Amino acid sequence: MLVEHQGKRPRIHDSAWVAPNAVISGDVTIGPESRVLYGAVVTAEGGPVEIGGQAIVMETAVIRGTQRHPVRLGSHVLVGPHAHLTGCTIEDDVFLATGASVFNGAVIERGAQVRINGVVHLKTRLPAGAVVPIGWIAVGDPATILPPDKHDEIWAVQRELDFPQEVFGLSRPPTEAGMGSLMPELTRRYGKALDAHRSDRTLPDGDEDS
Amino acid sequence: MLVEHQGKRPRIHDSAWVAPNAVISGDVTIGPESRVLYGAVVTAEGGPVEIGGQAIVMETAVIRGTQRHPVRLGSHVLVGPHAHLTGCTIEDDVFLATGASVFNGAVIERGAQVRINGVVHLKTRLPAGAVVPIGWIAVGDPATILPPDKHDEIWAVQRELDFPQEVFGLSRPPTEAGMGSLMPELTRRYGKALDAHRSDRTLPDGDEDS
Amino acid sequence: MLVEHQGKRPRIHDSAWVAPNAVISGDVTIGPESRVLYGAVVTAEGGPVEIGGQAIVMETAVIRGTQRHPVRLGSHVLVGPHAHLTGCTIEDDVFLATGASVFNGAVIERGAQVRINGVVHLKTRLPAGAVVPIGWIAVGDPATILPPDKHDEIWAVQRELDFPQEVFGLSRPPTEAGMGSLMPELTRRYGKALDAHRSDRTLPDGDEDS
Repeated sequence: MLVEHQGKRPRIHDSAWVAPNAVISGDVTIGPESRVLYGAVVTAEGGPVEIGGQAIVMETAVIRGTQRHPVRLGSHVLVGPHAHLTGCTIEDDVFLATGASVFNGAVIERGAQVRINGVVHLKTRLPAGAVVPIGWIAVGDPATILPPDKHDEIWAVQRELDFPQEVFGLSRPPTEAGMGSLMPELTRRYGKALDAHRSDRTLPDGDEDS
Repeated sequence: MLVEHQGKRPRIHDSAWVAPNAVISGDVTIGPESRVLYGAVVTAEGGPVEIGGQAIVMETAVIRGTQRHPVRLGSHVLVGPHAHLTGCTIEDDVFLATGASVFNGAVIERGAQVRINGVVHLKTRLPAGAVVPIGWIAVGDPATILPPDKHDEIWAVQRELDFPQEVFGLSRPPTEAGMGSLMPELTRRYGKALDAHRSDRTLPDGDEDS
Repeated sequence: MLVEHQGKRPRIHDSAWVAPNAVISGDVTIGPESRVLYGAVVTAEGGPVEIGGQAIVMETAVIRGTQRHPVRLGSHVLVGPHAHLTGCTIEDDVFLATGASVFNGAVIERGAQVRINGVVHLKTRLPAGAVVPIGWIAVGDPATILPPDKHDEIWAVQRELDFPQEVFGLSRPPTEAGMGSLMPELTRRYGKALDAHRSDRTLPDGDEDS
């Protein structure tokens, strides 16, 4: 399902294959011999998504570009099923396993691996060849890579990366518990941006730019 | 894709937006200025799902109401991609990150946060403003919040919450390993309930109640 | 959505129910009174997928058979939302919770349980009645079951199971960090195999074999 969003249409190379029920919406470029499998969502929400050649985006993976954080995904990259990538840069030859998630402003350098359910957090830089083990979290620049039980150490780094400010332009409240107070304004802003989908146009097969 | 299930149709506020390939099935109410993004599934399986205003249900999230456990989701709530909510109450201003899961009978109080891949277990009450760290588990009422390596402590609480009885009306076997013996009856009951989908009716665009 | 892939069509028992937007592609057999819920993907990629009777595949779960690793899923099995199964054998009466993942060559014996976000790794045999706790990893034959912080112990077993060789026929590089060097050849091979989807044919409703 190809969607024209904010007047922009996906550009999909003739040698790429996109499953008929995958969603490719807006300013998305997909390079030669890449594959987007069933149920995946690649959505340019105000900022572009560029996917290189021989990349494989597996079933139900979600990739989102935003105005502040476009997505650039290199060549020979594998994005596993149930993975979630938002506003990040993935260099060539990266392996993102099942359920991996990568957040806004993160950079995963060439040949790095994020294993099953691994997380690369906001504004984190994962160096070339680095490995995030199953269920671990990479956080910071340069990245510290920690298991989930090390919450205090993760939060000490993560807090300074300031998710509400970076992603939504909202000031973080003084305490970790205070996030709730941001939600009315956060959902109002995000909901308003998403309202641009009302003028989407689903494209007939073969009508994408190529 | 809007579905009439068991004679009931979704009610979606005119100012809400639902992605064309999201599924909204049965007795589901979606409030003003809410958004349901690509690939999400909101399904009332014998019990209602009510979603408030300015809520955002992100890509491929799954929300399920059941007869014993309806879903009530407040206003200004964000449900991340790949999240799974079943039969729970989510108060206003709650942030549920990527891959969060919340189970039957749970209550998440106002302004709480469940971070990436965090779990709020059966019949658990997460207090206002509480935080479930990345990959941690909240269990019990009041909730204990533990990292995954603390399985023995989690199970000591979880065992008493009695998932098979609460969700399927089946008596838990005496040992943790005995769950398998319930599966023939569990799948028979659940499969029979799901058979009600045979008389579903996919609604033409614009034919939902509003 | 039923798909003929490589000349093969799904065979779905008359008493089974498959959600209209679930994908069933290629050499897939679904037994009596089974259910495949919204957004699920069951895909035979060069090797068959056989699902027994009274099995329930929940929303957005992904099940993939490959040439080297077919899938056989027994009767009375529950596959939770956001689960991912590839090339594995699941015996009768198994419970796979939300976000569970099971990899190529794994065998889950009768009545075992994989809890929320649990992982059963490559070529791992999980014995009858065993339990993988929330977020833990089972690895090896016989399986060692470990929490995510035990990465060194997990990797010591996993390394010998040789994912690149087993799944893609590629020799593992000498260091853990060397995976990136395989990605050009890995994505070339996988992309070429997936190219077979170009000659898929979406089947009209009711046109599957039964």
